[in-house]
Amino acid sequence: MKKIYEGKAKIVYATEDENRVIVFFKDSATAFDATKKAEIEGKGVINNTISSMLFEILNGSGIKTHYIKRLSDREMLVWKAKRFDLEVVVRNITAGSICRRLGMKEGIELKKPLVELFYKKDELHDPLICKSHALMLSLAEEEQIDRMENMALQVNEVLKGFFQACGIILVDFKLEFGILPDGEIAVIDEISPDTCRLWDAESKEKLDKDRFRFDLGNLMEGYKKVLERIQR
Amino acid sequence: MKKIYEGKAKIVYATEDENRVIVFFKDSATAFDATKKAEIEGKGVINNTISSMLFEILNGSGIKTHYIKRLSDREMLVWKAKRFDLEVVVRNITAGSICRRLGMKEGIELKKPLVELFYKKDELHDPLICKSHALMLSLAEEEQIDRMENMALQVNEVLKGFFQACGIILVDFKLEFGILPDGEIAVIDEISPDTCRLWDAESKEKLDKDRFRFDLGNLMEGYKKVLERIQR
Repeated sequence: MKKIYEGKAKIVYATEDENRVIVFFKDSATAFDATKKAEIEGKGVINNTISSMLFEILNGSGIKTHYIKRLSDREMLVWKAKRFDLEVVVRNITAGSICRRLGMKEGIELKKPLVELFYKKDELHDPLICKSHALMLSLAEEEQIDRMENMALQVNEVLKGFFQACGIILVDFKLEFGILPDGEIAVIDEISPDTCRLWDAESKEKLDKDRFRFDLGNLMEGYKKVLERIQR
Repeated sequence: MKKIYEGKAKIVYATEDENRVIVFFKDSATAFDATKKAEIEGKGVINNTISSMLFEILNGSGIKTHYIKRLSDREMLVWKAKRFDLEVVVRNITAGSICRRLGMKEGIELKKPLVELFYKKDELHDPLICKSHALMLSLAEEEQIDRMENMALQVNEVLKGFFQACGIILVDFKLEFGILPDGEIAVIDEISPDTCRLWDAESKEKLDKDRFRFDLGNLMEGYKKVLERIQR
């Protein structure tokens, strides 16, 4: 297969259909602008499985995603997308960068979900931006940004409810968006414990990539707990 | 006089009227979160003079400010204000933090003025925030933020034109806002080469605090050039 793109955690391959590509999930884990790195056996398999399930839920809820189907342990077939250089973060509970930036304690439940935009640019360390900056940098048009923010809030409603039913708190998550061959905006990339903060609803145990970032325990144990609960 | 507040560059004193206070301009210069400091003889006098002139222009243009009158070389009588913990920055041309944050070259003229909000909190190094963060932190109500942003753009139109007529480019500036005793939102603090980036229209020589920040030459020479040109 012809490699189109290789990122930190995934590889994208061409297919015979120019509108469809295959996403291959690697075992690489990276954090803090990839200054912390590791290979974690089986992570790619589990993230492909979780991501496929969550994309199926979103597709079923009428939220457009790039997902077509899961092909194998590590491979997902998706629509080819023109990616926006934006990361859209939705927060329900304070954790991570917002605590450092704004001096907030971790674990504060927000009155309403907070949507944040980040400029996807490694060499700038993905800085926080506002809509005005995104427009200035021509990262997207105003209606496209509004659409992405609204879709992100819809994704939040669907996944928050889904995880809640599984005994998991959806603390926050990062989405990426792109334009599919049909011209519509869709959720792309992956949705997994690499891109979501997920806490056990009872014990508040962290089941996501923060285990790797802050050495809080075996990463795969957390990821496997997430998978087991959502597969029930 | 009873001291109410002392900041890095100014002291606020009470008067016999509880609704009016006196702002005293010190000679202290600080930069980079006050890690760089100096006393620059005469800076307070010149900033009080420039600030008074600019506030008079704004008052005359129907833009509400806290300014009542200049009392002496270093003293300005103003309405007492309840300050918002926000800094509102307007940019016409790229310079300073936006270049570092977004990887932009200095000196790029923006298609339209960019308004940015910063959370005024020394220990957090005044981080950039969006309107959504300001609301979450209860720094102001939504209508108040809209009002401040609109007022900041009005200030920009008035001052950009005024400086242009003096052969000076208004690159960017920082405003602070507060609520006056009459309940209205007003521009407060100061407007001076400490809070504006001002470049010579011909030579592009920097006439503002960047001279101090980056040791670009005698600070007072730059500030005096600004004063001379606007007093013509």
